[in-house]
Amino acid sequence: MKNLKLTLITLFCIVTTNVIGQEIIHDAEHYVLLKQHGDKWENEDKVIDKKLKALEKKHGTKPNIIHIMWDDTAVGEVGIPEIQKVRGFETPVMNDMAKEGMNFMRMYTEPSCTPTRADAMTGRYAVRTGMHTVSFPIENSGLDADEVTIAEVLSDAGYSTAFYGKWHLGDTESSYAHNQGFDEAFFTPYNQVPSMWVREAEANNVVTGLYPDLYGEDIYDVDNSWQPIGYVWTLEGTKGGKTYEWGAPPAVPNFWDIDKECEKRTMDFIRRNAKAKKPFYAAYWPTVTSFIPDARNPEKLTANKNVLQEGLVKVDAFIGELLKELEELGISENTLVIVMADNGPFTHHGPRGMVETLYTGGKGDLTEGGVRVPCIAQWPGMFEGEDNVIGDILHITDLYTTFARIAGATDFIPRDRIIDGVDQTSLFVNGDGYSRRDYVMIYQGPNLAAGVKGRFKKDHKNAEPGLSGAEFYDLYTDPRENNPEMISMFHTKSMFNRQKERHEFWMEKYPNRPDATPGIPLTGIENVRPETEKLYHAPFNKEDLPFDPNELREYPMPFVD
Amino acid sequence: MKNLKLTLITLFCIVTTNVIGQEIIHDAEHYVLLKQHGDKWENEDKVIDKKLKALEKKHGTKPNIIHIMWDDTAVGEVGIPEIQKVRGFETPVMNDMAKEGMNFMRMYTEPSCTPTRADAMTGRYAVRTGMHTVSFPIENSGLDADEVTIAEVLSDAGYSTAFYGKWHLGDTESSYAHNQGFDEAFFTPYNQVPSMWVREAEANNVVTGLYPDLYGEDIYDVDNSWQPIGYVWTLEGTKGGKTYEWGAPPAVPNFWDIDKECEKRTMDFIRRNAKAKKPFYAAYWPTVTSFIPDARNPEKLTANKNVLQEGLVKVDAFIGELLKELEELGISENTLVIVMADNGPFTHHGPRGMVETLYTGGKGDLTEGGVRVPCIAQWPGMFEGEDNVIGDILHITDLYTTFARIAGATDFIPRDRIIDGVDQTSLFVNGDGYSRRDYVMIYQGPNLAAGVKGRFKKDHKNAEPGLSGAEFYDLYTDPRENNPEMISMFHTKSMFNRQKERHEFWMEKYPNRPDATPGIPLTGIENVRPETEKLYHAPFNKEDLPFDPNELREYPMPFVD
Repeated sequence: MKNLKLTLITLFCIVTTNVIGQEIIHDAEHYVLLKQHGDKWENEDKVIDKKLKALEKKHGTKPNIIHIMWDDTAVGEVGIPEIQKVRGFETPVMNDMAKEGMNFMRMYTEPSCTPTRADAMTGRYAVRTGMHTVSFPIENSGLDADEVTIAEVLSDAGYSTAFYGKWHLGDTESSYAHNQGFDEAFFTPYNQVPSMWVREAEANNVVTGLYPDLYGEDIYDVDNSWQPIGYVWTLEGTKGGKTYEWGAPPAVPNFWDIDKECEKRTMDFIRRNAKAKKPFYAAYWPTVTSFIPDARNPEKLTANKNVLQEGLVKVDAFIGELLKELEELGISENTLVIVMADNGPFTHHGPRGMVETLYTGGKGDLTEGGVRVPCIAQWPGMFEGEDNVIGDILHITDLYTTFARIAGATDFIPRDRIIDGVDQTSLFVNGDGYSRRDYVMIYQGPNLAAGVKGRFKKDHKNAEPGLSGAEFYDLYTDPRENNPEMISMFHTKSMFNRQKERHEFWMEKYPNRPDATPGIPLTGIENVRPETEKLYHAPFNKEDLPFDPNELREYPMPFVD
Repeated sequence: MKNLKLTLITLFCIVTTNVIGQEIIHDAEHYVLLKQHGDKWENEDKVIDKKLKALEKKHGTKPNIIHIMWDDTAVGEVGIPEIQKVRGFETPVMNDMAKEGMNFMRMYTEPSCTPTRADAMTGRYAVRTGMHTVSFPIENSGLDADEVTIAEVLSDAGYSTAFYGKWHLGDTESSYAHNQGFDEAFFTPYNQVPSMWVREAEANNVVTGLYPDLYGEDIYDVDNSWQPIGYVWTLEGTKGGKTYEWGAPPAVPNFWDIDKECEKRTMDFIRRNAKAKKPFYAAYWPTVTSFIPDARNPEKLTANKNVLQEGLVKVDAFIGELLKELEELGISENTLVIVMADNGPFTHHGPRGMVETLYTGGKGDLTEGGVRVPCIAQWPGMFEGEDNVIGDILHITDLYTTFARIAGATDFIPRDRIIDGVDQTSLFVNGDGYSRRDYVMIYQGPNLAAGVKGRFKKDHKNAEPGLSGAEFYDLYTDPRENNPEMISMFHTKSMFNRQKERHEFWMEKYPNRPDATPGIPLTGIENVRPETEKLYHAPFNKEDLPFDPNELREYPMPFVD
């Protein structure tokens, strides 16, 4: 009933907010480029429309879309064999994809998981959806039901949609993937942190304090209510259907099993839809490059041997199977496959082997190392660029608008809010030099941290108050952002001021959600465990304490029986 | 007469020190590998010998060798189009060479110019030849006459030899390139510093204090003898012949003219020898990536626009002409062409645009960023490796032994001193995985700073006294050497101790020259300028000062008239 209600609300929003023929509202900077290149883009688009029609005619369906996105990987870590050669590992499938398909050298994301995933789902900077901060269990919040995901947009155009893997967009029922537009979903509401739940990991002190029963007695540990247990690892469900917990944590030997299940389901979903001649959108976002090694297998696949690189070769092997399957199903030409990471490497608090490669910084940072990722694509039926090493700027939100355009679903994109993504189909067809974007606004959490315009960048966060600040960078000259410049880049100051002012003016007109939408966590699970159920009850009754144990919760929980 | 004497001394050394059949003395670590792989190497060598013979039979001469080496460039800066794409420049010729030929991802040099050049010339670590420190004008020293250069070795085997460009191996007459075995030489005894001599550069304050006549009066500047003038920029000469200064500094508009002249002479030398069916060795070491931009041409070739990148595209264009010429002369198959840098980028005191790319540090550093360089080769008639992206360790000294082997000149390598270079012909023929080296001793000046063994590295310089020190690195895991390890790499401690002890024991047996060999600078120039001639006279006569104005000079200079 609840699910139905959510679906109805969503449908209502789409109907009321999309006036056919009304233009999408983009970020202000877009219109500056549109004014200069609109005619050229229009001409390109006419040719693309013809090509898309010819492709549809040839294959009998609109193009399929597969989006694979894993964690925490630096630009250069995949797709450039020369670099892998000095790092002791190899991803031959992705390297071949890069050689034959498109290698995007300047794909920008948000600097961390939750925001990037929210961007991909909504086509909007995470600051607009309130999903600007990495969620950790227990979060009591999630992606708002009123956000219109790419799954909803593509569903409206007749696509089958499926999500498998790391969702990380909240633990409230309305944020579950199958309540956000996916026909089929098998997903982790959180990041891989609950994968640390496995008791085996405690042998290596990976987790700290999760299993007091394993440690020698601590007579000072006296509060049994302080730390929640009953985290949920993986959920599954279908659009409008019930929600189930999958597996039986913490008994599952380790979290690699989730990816194995995801891979199986991804392949099955693709086969079913290919056979039914139905266009599909599959998002498989592996949990693979996590924080703990595979405790069951001391033997490593790579000389490098670190968690990230071991994970990358596993993802690579699966992509190999997937591409082979597309060939065998005869849908390779008609399928856009994009493989990428969600943000820079975990250089600050991460495990060994998460290191800078070409850029400075990593996950969480405003430097290029935080917000740029490897990204490789193939679309043999459509790509005909002369140069497939692509230096153009592409932004994670562009996937939203581009997928919609490819699917003939642009009309289902809402018109009552800012959509940061722009249509980059031309880039995916014509290759290097065809981007419709030369700007990125870089946020850290809710704060505007930096602006990018072409080769130039301004660090807003570390600007010295009262000075112009030694805060400007030329990324061609100083890609590692080691030498902030002032006098020598004076000409970029007013340019960046204008960019920021426009962006913020537009934001006043179309306000942001301040935060992820709060709610009671992990409700609506059919096979809920008692310890999970406890999570959405206040831990004490009112009369047990001299204050309300719900304290300041926006969503008061029922009290325990 | 003097030149003849030097030549005779050199010849005498070769004759007395090379007993045919006696083995080359390598660094100690080599014998550890020889013991383990000697049989395999012998078998490989038999096949290579046959291939070399077949090649000689086909072309009528032994293979030609062209060695192009420029300054201060980070690994990744050329040969990897993906990286150039985000840096705003392109070297299409070298990128194609890397794709079709061999891309060495782990070429080690010394951390600076003079030492690397001495290594290439002698096949010995610069610490052994005394050439361990960058020379600056006026240096009063140079490469010892008793060192046996690759030009001497190849001359003995009947090769024509020529040197063009930045020599940087001393300003003493015995160190001039044509007195060190080259048939033809056109060279700068110093680095590009005298290129700052141009008065135009003073407009940008590139030099400091070289042209007091250009500045407003400084009444405190009272010592007219303190700063030498009369630096020599470029010399030319032929083996056994006279020495001339080329051009008329400081009147030459700028130093790019040197490279233009070098390019012209390189092409002419190659054509002459190809037509004469004589095998040749041409070293063209461009001065190009220097410290000042081309003042005559405000228009830039690249979007990047910095001095290094502008230089790289110029070198690239010349290499393109060169390769085309080899094709036209029909000697492409029979010519080994190696293009590379001499050390890491000038990150500490250099101009804008000299930045880290994949590794930490630059020129002068013991980190990988200091001692690893891009290196690309082609030898179409011989290379038949399955994988041309090469992760093996290669060392600059290996070029000496490898060139000698290819030329059938191994017998002319001296047997009375340590030769650090090993024969890497197999790597140049069979590609990835065929190196005969897994070790490098990294020196900074005369001090052993670090040891490399395969993926592992020990920083000897920064080791905490009294501890094992947090000083070990795994270069696959931590290529940027950000996180020195101790406990987790305990197993490498005794390995590195053994490596160092062997190396130092061998050094006691075969002692180093302590320094570059001293001497009077810039003598023997036929068209010497008066101000240059003044440089090799003491600035005052004895009676002018209460002490000997030659002070502690090892080579007393004549007094001024």
